[in-house]
Amino acid sequence: MNMSQIIAEKDFLSKAEELARYFETDASERDKEGGTPKAQRDALRESGLLNALIPQKWGGLGLPWSSVMAITRILSTADSSLGHLFGYHHLAISYTLLGHDQEYAKRLLEQSASHHWFWGNATNPLDQGLAIVRRNHPDEGFIANGSKSFGSGSPDSDVLTLIWADSDNRENYFFGNIPTRREGITVHDDWDHIGQRQTGSGTVSFHNVIIHPEETSPLIFNAEIPFSTIGSLLSQSVLTQIFVGCALGALKEGKRYTREKTRAWGASGLDSASDDPYILRNYGEYWTETAAAESLADRALAKIDAIWEKGNALTWEERSEAAALTAAANVFAGRVGLEVTSRFFEAMGARSAARDFGFDRFWRNVRTHTLHNPADYKLRTVGNWHLNEKGPIPTSYS
Amino acid sequence: MNMSQIIAEKDFLSKAEELARYFETDASERDKEGGTPKAQRDALRESGLLNALIPQKWGGLGLPWSSVMAITRILSTADSSLGHLFGYHHLAISYTLLGHDQEYAKRLLEQSASHHWFWGNATNPLDQGLAIVRRNHPDEGFIANGSKSFGSGSPDSDVLTLIWADSDNRENYFFGNIPTRREGITVHDDWDHIGQRQTGSGTVSFHNVIIHPEETSPLIFNAEIPFSTIGSLLSQSVLTQIFVGCALGALKEGKRYTREKTRAWGASGLDSASDDPYILRNYGEYWTETAAAESLADRALAKIDAIWEKGNALTWEERSEAAALTAAANVFAGRVGLEVTSRFFEAMGARSAARDFGFDRFWRNVRTHTLHNPADYKLRTVGNWHLNEKGPIPTSYS
Amino acid sequence: MNMSQIIAEKDFLSKAEELARYFETDASERDKEGGTPKAQRDALRESGLLNALIPQKWGGLGLPWSSVMAITRILSTADSSLGHLFGYHHLAISYTLLGHDQEYAKRLLEQSASHHWFWGNATNPLDQGLAIVRRNHPDEGFIANGSKSFGSGSPDSDVLTLIWADSDNRENYFFGNIPTRREGITVHDDWDHIGQRQTGSGTVSFHNVIIHPEETSPLIFNAEIPFSTIGSLLSQSVLTQIFVGCALGALKEGKRYTREKTRAWGASGLDSASDDPYILRNYGEYWTETAAAESLADRALAKIDAIWEKGNALTWEERSEAAALTAAANVFAGRVGLEVTSRFFEAMGARSAARDFGFDRFWRNVRTHTLHNPADYKLRTVGNWHLNEKGPIPTSYS
Amino acid sequence: MNMSQIIAEKDFLSKAEELARYFETDASERDKEGGTPKAQRDALRESGLLNALIPQKWGGLGLPWSSVMAITRILSTADSSLGHLFGYHHLAISYTLLGHDQEYAKRLLEQSASHHWFWGNATNPLDQGLAIVRRNHPDEGFIANGSKSFGSGSPDSDVLTLIWADSDNRENYFFGNIPTRREGITVHDDWDHIGQRQTGSGTVSFHNVIIHPEETSPLIFNAEIPFSTIGSLLSQSVLTQIFVGCALGALKEGKRYTREKTRAWGASGLDSASDDPYILRNYGEYWTETAAAESLADRALAKIDAIWEKGNALTWEERSEAAALTAAANVFAGRVGLEVTSRFFEAMGARSAARDFGFDRFWRNVRTHTLHNPADYKLRTVGNWHLNEKGPIPTSYS
Repeated sequence: MNMSQIIAEKDFLSKAEELARYFETDASERDKEGGTPKAQRDALRESGLLNALIPQKWGGLGLPWSSVMAITRILSTADSSLGHLFGYHHLAISYTLLGHDQEYAKRLLEQSASHHWFWGNATNPLDQGLAIVRRNHPDEGFIANGSKSFGSGSPDSDVLTLIWADSDNRENYFFGNIPTRREGITVHDDWDHIGQRQTGSGTVSFHNVIIHPEETSPLIFNAEIPFSTIGSLLSQSVLTQIFVGCALGALKEGKRYTREKTRAWGASGLDSASDDPYILRNYGEYWTETAAAESLADRALAKIDAIWEKGNALTWEERSEAAALTAAANVFAGRVGLEVTSRFFEAMGARSAARDFGFDRFWRNVRTHTLHNPADYKLRTVGNWHLNEKGPIPTSYS
Repeated sequence: MNMSQIIAEKDFLSKAEELARYFETDASERDKEGGTPKAQRDALRESGLLNALIPQKWGGLGLPWSSVMAITRILSTADSSLGHLFGYHHLAISYTLLGHDQEYAKRLLEQSASHHWFWGNATNPLDQGLAIVRRNHPDEGFIANGSKSFGSGSPDSDVLTLIWADSDNRENYFFGNIPTRREGITVHDDWDHIGQRQTGSGTVSFHNVIIHPEETSPLIFNAEIPFSTIGSLLSQSVLTQIFVGCALGALKEGKRYTREKTRAWGASGLDSASDDPYILRNYGEYWTETAAAESLADRALAKIDAIWEKGNALTWEERSEAAALTAAANVFAGRVGLEVTSRFFEAMGARSAARDFGFDRFWRNVRTHTLHNPADYKLRTVGNWHLNEKGPIPTSYS
Repeated sequence: MNMSQIIAEKDFLSKAEELARYFETDASERDKEGGTPKAQRDALRESGLLNALIPQKWGGLGLPWSSVMAITRILSTADSSLGHLFGYHHLAISYTLLGHDQEYAKRLLEQSASHHWFWGNATNPLDQGLAIVRRNHPDEGFIANGSKSFGSGSPDSDVLTLIWADSDNRENYFFGNIPTRREGITVHDDWDHIGQRQTGSGTVSFHNVIIHPEETSPLIFNAEIPFSTIGSLLSQSVLTQIFVGCALGALKEGKRYTREKTRAWGASGLDSASDDPYILRNYGEYWTETAAAESLADRALAKIDAIWEKGNALTWEERSEAAALTAAANVFAGRVGLEVTSRFFEAMGARSAARDFGFDRFWRNVRTHTLHNPADYKLRTVGNWHLNEKGPIPTSYS
Repeated sequence: MNMSQIIAEKDFLSKAEELARYFETDASERDKEGGTPKAQRDALRESGLLNALIPQKWGGLGLPWSSVMAITRILSTADSSLGHLFGYHHLAISYTLLGHDQEYAKRLLEQSASHHWFWGNATNPLDQGLAIVRRNHPDEGFIANGSKSFGSGSPDSDVLTLIWADSDNRENYFFGNIPTRREGITVHDDWDHIGQRQTGSGTVSFHNVIIHPEETSPLIFNAEIPFSTIGSLLSQSVLTQIFVGCALGALKEGKRYTREKTRAWGASGLDSASDDPYILRNYGEYWTETAAAESLADRALAKIDAIWEKGNALTWEERSEAAALTAAANVFAGRVGLEVTSRFFEAMGARSAARDFGFDRFWRNVRTHTLHNPADYKLRTVGNWHLNEKGPIPTSYS
């Protein structure tokens, strides 16, 4: 990282904090509403942070992945839906950036940087409901019909990322990035889960949607090239920041509440709840666990930066180690997130469960997202690496 | 327990199961709505179960406390708001039953049995907002002004239980049971917490409400008579059943969902999620913990039946042991409830977090109610009994 | 259970407590020594308790399995090696008792009752090192050569139980009970594990050992007869009592130590460690978990008594339910045992780790025995029963 | 850190690894023996590592505290007694180094560096049994009589560190460093705890021991100078490395054992235990928790380096933050250490409990040392910092 990047990063951490302060003012209300946080998304556009990962030579900030994730964590502390949207936006950009067609990447990302595009995706690998096939003539590109679920960030997005197997050879993959407003695309905005309620992770349907050749590029996902398979590590690291952010958010809100509202329990014989030995110990536990999750997440991010720099020189052994560490950080942050967001009520007391405060949103947010891929299988990955020195078979989740 | 009771209990466990089947059909929808479950409350009235604790000689079923709690647990498995209403109804009745004025109890409970009254309360001991004072002439009774929060079961109740210190001598207490429809009483139905959403635990306000002398009785809560202080044990045991019921409810719903909807995870190499070694192990853990909570709860209920039978012969040592065991069962059930209702999503998968299923209600219900009094202080009670062989100072919570 | 049994049981619980008081006087020293607790074994012989399970008509006490296990738990509280010896003695007797050859059982158990025999075993199903084959003539019985590991209770035993597959038909099993002093048998007394150090669970070797026909009986283990497969449930329930006993023992020793020796921590500002809010809370946790383990163990024992009474009328469904409950109680008690025996040092302080006190023996004892069969597979059994309503395939461990 | 330091550190990490490989060859045997690991202590002397913290200008390696702790962790992975001796040696040196009398420090540390002295201590602040008073004439220094318990590293030490209050003014403290072989000193080598068995943490007694004036220096521990109070943070960080090292050691030994000796469990249907889904998951858990403990420990060490560099410019706020982070890292590492060293047997199976392997030493080592000061009070420190933004009152433990 050169000096100009360090300065830029510092600025943008402040900018992220500033946005977080804005987002938290009505995070609880927006959690109840669900839907699309239009004003907040526009604030992200205006902040310049959407260009964080795009190289400086193409008009972006050129921050490393770890810095993009630091911003994701800060935003998630205030509102994990917005952290999610920010993180998945960059995940979509990373596919383009890590792809082999640098000309394609340059063209797309220069435009994105200049217009502050917000990217969404329709790439859920477990949903087989979208058919993308070649049009009659090779120069005509592809045509898409059907639908995809879990299309995070699709509402109000400028670009939609798609991934599909070549209909001529199911071993080869393409990805494409097209304007979300293209004819035939309907973003249904039907996401209604118990948490991550403003992530717009609903259905996107396609009716005879044209994908032009220049909008697509072969997607390399190749057993010969370990570096081509790191997307699943980036994806897991986005979720890790969200879990850590939720724990940090609960710690912050809990602190404010206990100091301002919690009454000393009768049997304590104390005047102030803030002196209660059990409340102090409880916060000590939540803080300690959260700090451990942050530290392990940071270690995993440093490893991701390191393998990113390796590029095509990355070995399978290095990829495996990074995969194990990334999985460990993700599982650990998820557990701590669940624990802290479920338990912090105990340091606040009975009235903190009033729906008006919306403090259950932290647990609902972590719970929703920790189900994305099973913790048990990630632990198996970690154990297999430790015991048998084997990395996971690369998939969308490992 | 004589044979007719055993038969009666058996009938009423079947009746409770039948009601539970009815309640669970729309428990998730009603959780979203909040408010008062009028039809379900009326079904409870019609079932005869509201008379469970009232002695047979006064027209009730004469069931022991442990049987009333068994019903509470069954109802809570389907809908813990209704378990709560049922349990607190009986808690209010128990005050009358355990009181020293048997003539008062007879008059009140015979009427209650005959009309299938549903009792609510406005007794929150931590809320000082309600003033009940003697009227000018001793024969005129009392007059109430102000309000009480956390008035569980007050909406749609027939009787409202009140407890207050004598304005002439703050050491003496009265309790009274008056028609909820009496002039001057407003049940605000403003309860809006994250869980236990149909328990109507909101504010009840009083404007010049007359309490007639025959509606009141001195409330004995006396250091000389251990038996007069067991109300807090009954109260904790109601909550215990709710926590156990929520865990059982999650186990039941989870089982159905996993079998019908969960898809095998790709990396498992299996066809069916129901064969997944981790899903099986997870259900094994949830079931084991829940079974431990049930068993400890049953042991505590047997002890409560035993001290109830002792009556005024109850010693402090026996009261202390029962208090420790009751606290232990309550804390343990609360922990297991939180753990199982938070974790069972992991055996169902990502789509189980759809708001439509409402599976987060189990965690929200347990979380709301486990804050009622702090687990740490209950553990202190248990530890003090083990280490120093001392019971807790009797209060509304210990 | 008839009245005479109830009285007998009560007597023998007192007797068990009396023995426990004797055993605990030097349990820590004997743990360091290992070897065979000869005096303590003789005290068990003299107590009459070794006949607990033998029917009254054959000279025993005729206690149900749950009572035998209650004694095992009491002994384990003081010294889990002696609880182990007592429990496995009865396990060996149960095989004879549950067998189909009642004449054989009568002959053997009448003698055992009259001489207060102590039984050991050489039945480890995972060790293939012992060959027992028919002698030339059918009337001559069998001849044994080789060795068995994990021969719990073999040193100082009067009878040794053996189980083997028929050399003519490996589907058929025999069991035999022979004098341990028979020519050709060497009990090596080479057990040296980190815990359960006086259980004599070492190697027994056999050199041309004759087993007479009248000492053997066909061992029924038959998919047609669920009742013939309940031995593994009895075995697991013995271990469960040991785990619960170790937790209870740690609670008792910890209480004594904290009261007599622990000094208040400086930062507490207190005079006495027994008033420390954290020490009280810690004991509250240990006690609560131990009480839950006891209660679940009791529930599982009640179920075992119930299926024992069913005899050959036992169905697979009932056997499966009992197997799940037994496995759950075993896993839960093992976890609580590990937790309490590892953590109780925290309520005693730094000096409690002096080797002189030997307080680590509780953890070492639980740890050694919880490895007997993997907790994960027992949880899978429980989960499979809950989710798929399937019982485990009957084996020596399930 | 300049370039020569970076090289030096790298060399010495290799050197530490080399020593660790030597120590682990007989760590289990030496654990059984207890006593003083003379050959291993001499190997540490010869390695040059005992001078790690001494500034280069005085003949040492001038490594920062975090590097000294990295070595401590590596040594503890193999044998936590040797990690302990190494860490406490440096703790004693740090007192001299952080003291205000730089002339004294120079004189002492130059000698120590040149002779590769090994330092022990007799400084247990909770033991009041040692009286050190001024001799008649101010120039004659002090005289010591009595004894100190918990004198870690005193056997075979070259220097013994003492700390005492001035008999004229109990507010002022001195510390002295004297030859362990001085007349009147007896090192009893009577340490016999369940773990950390070769740390020589026994009694040192003093009979008219002369302490010369030039061997002493005023010990600043001053509320005006936060930097003078950081010794307790260094002390806690030594323990943290020991806990992390024990978990890493268990992971390493467990891996070897499972691969070489563990047999597949029958019910798994697998040929190799190394493919067992539960064993893999278990190792995944142990590894993940250990990695989190390492990462949090590293974060705390970076903070300690940072406050060390601040020197007398250190503020109370910075000291408080470092104290909270250090306490959190210590508590977390202790918990993980206990958990991993107790649970890793489950991934190895029943035979791994044979005393020959000595695998229980990891748990015994962690358990012994985690009692040094109560985890609950450290959590209170962390909670008080988070909730009330207050640091702990500086003591020997906070």
